[in-house]
Amino acid sequence: MELPKGVEWAAHALVVLHVVGDDRPLSSAGLARVFDLSPTYLNKHLQKLAAAGLVTSVPGASGGFRLARGADEISLHDVVAALGSAGPLFRCKEIRCQGAFADQKSQILAQGLCGINRAMLQAEDAWRSSLRSVSIAALASGVGAASRTRMFQVTGLEPTTQENQ
Amino acid sequence: MELPKGVEWAAHALVVLHVVGDDRPLSSAGLARVFDLSPTYLNKHLQKLAAAGLVTSVPGASGGFRLARGADEISLHDVVAALGSAGPLFRCKEIRCQGAFADQKSQILAQGLCGINRAMLQAEDAWRSSLRSVSIAALASGVGAASRTRMFQVTGLEPTTQENQ
Ligand code: FES
Ligand code: FES
Repeated sequence: MELPKGVEWAAHALVVLHVVGDDRPLSSAGLARVFDLSPTYLNKHLQKLAAAGLVTSVPGASGGFRLARGADEISLHDVVAALGSAGPLFRCKEIRCQGAFADQKSQILAQGLCGINRAMLQAEDAWRSSLRSVSIAALASGVGAASRTRMFQVTGLEPTTQENQ
Repeated sequence: MELPKGVEWAAHALVVLHVVGDDRPLSSAGLARVFDLSPTYLNKHLQKLAAAGLVTSVPGASGGFRLARGADEISLHDVVAALGSAGPLFRCKEIRCQGAFADQKSQILAQGLCGINRAMLQAEDAWRSSLRSVSIAALASGVGAASRTRMFQVTGLEPTTQENQ
C-alpha cells in the first residue's frame, strides 16, 4: 500500500505557489521548470488540485494556477485527499457477521463497531490528524532564502516588495 | 489507497486462534468455517502470517495453525505488516533536488529530510504506533461469551477447563 507518487510533487508545487505569491498565477510550464517535471503530468495533477478546491485556474496570457485559499488553510491532508486517498484505508466488510454468526447479524451490528474496525479507524484518524496539522504555509516557512530566489528566477516571476523585505 | 482485504479476516482469524487456545492448533478448514471463508483463500493468507512469524503451522492429523507467540505480543500492526503493508506509505523521490535545484543536490541533502517527507513520515508513525498499541489479546477480550461458545462449536474444539472457569 503506497500513496500515489503525485502527492510529493503536488505538495511541493503548492509550496512553490505560496512562495512566489498566493495571488499570482503561475503557468504549469513555469511550475514544471522548478523541479523539471513533465508539464503534461503536472497539469493532470493540477486539475485534481483544482477539482479539490486547493488551486484556482486563472485564464489568459498571464494566467495559470494560484492557491485557492490561504496557505495556512491548506494542509498536507488536503493534498493527500485531492490525489485520491480521501477514502478509508481499511474497509470493514463485517466478516464478524458471517458463517457461524450469520443468524446473529442484527444483534451483532446493534453492539456497534467491531473492535478491529474501531482500532483500524482510530489509527487512520491519527494519520489524518497528523497530516491535517501541517499546512503549506508551515512547510513553506522551511524554504531558505536561496531556494526562494531560485523559485522566482525559474518561474520568471519577480519577488514582490513584501517578499524582498 | 486501501489496505488489502485480507487484513480484516487475518485479524479475526488471530482472535479466533487466541480464543480457542494459543497452544491448540486449528486447521484452516476449521478456521474457514467460523466466518464462512474460502479455505484456499484463508490458507494463502495463513501462509503469510506464518512467514511473518505470527502463526506456526503444526503438521499432522490434529495439526493446523496456532499463534506463534503470546496474543499480547501480536499487534494489529503486525497483521498489517504481514499482509504486505510494512513499507512506507510515502516514498520521497527527492524532487527538491531536481530541476532548478539539481546543482545544489549535495548541500540540500546535507540539510536533512525534506519538511514534506518529515511530515509524511511523522503521520505514518502516528498510524503505525496506533496499530502497534492494539494487541490480539486486547481485541479478543472484547469477544462475548456467546461468541466464544460458537467459536468452539464450529471449530470442533472443546473449551479447556481454564476457558470454562
Ligand atoms: S467485522 Fe470488520 S473489522 Fe471486524
Ligand atoms: S523532496 Fe521528497 S518530499 Fe520533499
